[in-house]
Amino acid sequence: MRYHETPLQVRFHEVDTYGVVWHGHYIGWFEAGRNDLTERFHLGPLQLKERDLLAPVVELTCQFKLPATFGDSLIVQTTMERTEVAKLIFYYRVLQKENEKVLATGSTTHVLTDLNGTLLYRVPPEVLERIEAMRKYLEI
Amino acid sequence: MRYHETPLQVRFHEVDTYGVVWHGHYIGWFEAGRNDLTERFHLGPLQLKERDLLAPVVELTCQFKLPATFGDSLIVQTTMERTEVAKLIFYYRVLQKENEKVLATGSTTHVLTDLNGTLLYRVPPEVLERIEAMRKYLEI
Amino acid sequence: MRYHETPLQVRFHEVDTYGVVWHGHYIGWFEAGRNDLTERFHLGPLQLKERDLLAPVVELTCQFKLPATFGDSLIVQTTMERTEVAKLIFYYRVLQKENEKVLATGSTTHVLTDLNGTLLYRVPPEVLERIEAMRKYLEI
Amino acid sequence: MRYHETPLQVRFHEVDTYGVVWHGHYIGWFEAGRNDLTERFHLGPLQLKERDLLAPVVELTCQFKLPATFGDSLIVQTTMERTEVAKLIFYYRVLQKENEKVLATGSTTHVLTDLNGTLLYRVPPEVLERIEAMRKYLEI
Repeated sequence: MRYHETPLQVRFHEVDTYGVVWHGHYIGWFEAGRNDLTERFHLGPLQLKERDLLAPVVELTCQFKLPATFGDSLIVQTTMERTEVAKLIFYYRVLQKENEKVLATGSTTHVLTDLNGTLLYRVPPEVLERIEAMRKYLEI
Repeated sequence: MRYHETPLQVRFHEVDTYGVVWHGHYIGWFEAGRNDLTERFHLGPLQLKERDLLAPVVELTCQFKLPATFGDSLIVQTTMERTEVAKLIFYYRVLQKENEKVLATGSTTHVLTDLNGTLLYRVPPEVLERIEAMRKYLEI
Repeated sequence: MRYHETPLQVRFHEVDTYGVVWHGHYIGWFEAGRNDLTERFHLGPLQLKERDLLAPVVELTCQFKLPATFGDSLIVQTTMERTEVAKLIFYYRVLQKENEKVLATGSTTHVLTDLNGTLLYRVPPEVLERIEAMRKYLEI
Repeated sequence: MRYHETPLQVRFHEVDTYGVVWHGHYIGWFEAGRNDLTERFHLGPLQLKERDLLAPVVELTCQFKLPATFGDSLIVQTTMERTEVAKLIFYYRVLQKENEKVLATGSTTHVLTDLNGTLLYRVPPEVLERIEAMRKYLEI
């Protein structure tokens, strides 16, 4: 298994009154990492939409280990789990670029639906192929 | 001229590392005040959309006088200027509820367009009526 | 066990391109509910800070059931679990005010630390008393 | 006069229900551009803080020309005006990287204060030198 890496700079307004990044901002960073990965396999939000598909988040988890602060250069690492086809589970790690210390880990679980939000009972073959290519890249 | 008032609580994650509300969050508060006003006259974003209209912001200004911080109870005051019909200018004041001190003032300028973003050369009569009712309420 | 309730209005800029509230915003809503509860027992972020204490989030989970959209009136329900003293676990539910449908559930786990981030081995008696009073209110 | 350039990717959650970036997010982008510039001259927020100085925003303006959307690669251009010493005025342009179309322009006005928020009547010589170096770089 390998991680796809996305670089990130902490912005001033992401830091709270205690001088550390407010925990909710990690959710946006996970998403930035995930979209950076999925777009390479034509599975980004817009590319799914073109195929009349959505992949809403149904569950998220996040574990906070060490704080980040303004000016930090970070890396979001994204990978996924091999799951049944209409469900996608992504895993994340946020690291300090400088020393590779892990600041946070997390996951998001997505289901594939049509534009009305109805769960797909059958994923279109080209979408399956793209997911398979993404898995190959991630070595899972 | 009178102001429409919308109450507001400062949230923890709106406060920056200097212990004061980050200046960009006032833009969202102006919008909360504006939508609270316009919805009463069926001129909110969704109500305009139903009429195939949009009112995008084309200009904004904000003057910061005094800081707000976590836990503050604020009031957003919203009013507007009498302008030509396809253009709306709103004015805002953000006050401490407790002592009525003005923390910030600002303005947003909006144009009325169709769903393709083309400026309206003629505003539908019912929309004009609603704008007129809003002006009456604001005594302008 | 009972839930403390905090009302909430969905803001325009919280809604994403699919017309539903972006999932990351629920984290801020959970926090709004939690702070509304804890401040009543002098256990809010500022009140802890006065006692040289912090309560950082070490873990969060969120399950998304149904979407919220612009203009929705919501209720954040907050309660907590009875845990060992230097650790606090809060549970949340976000409901549509109108029909009480549950849109999302979640949890945050916090540890009590001093201002250097060192875990407390002993919680100050007055803080324990406040936590006990909060538990009584929540009937846990 | 020249502009300092900072690249930027539009994130999914910055796009609103109309499919375009919500106008308030430009304020954070201006700040990202400004900090990227000022840090090169040891005038970033943290570097000023080390000198017991703050540079709060007292005024901001923004003009919106064309929309940005999810996935767009943008450039924030930042420059400044030659002003009296205890006041800094920055100008911004946000461009599409691909075709250099200007999406928005804007400005922020900052005052230099001590940590209590009192306006400086005299700017420390090293800070003046750094500002002068930044002006030279910007050819103003």
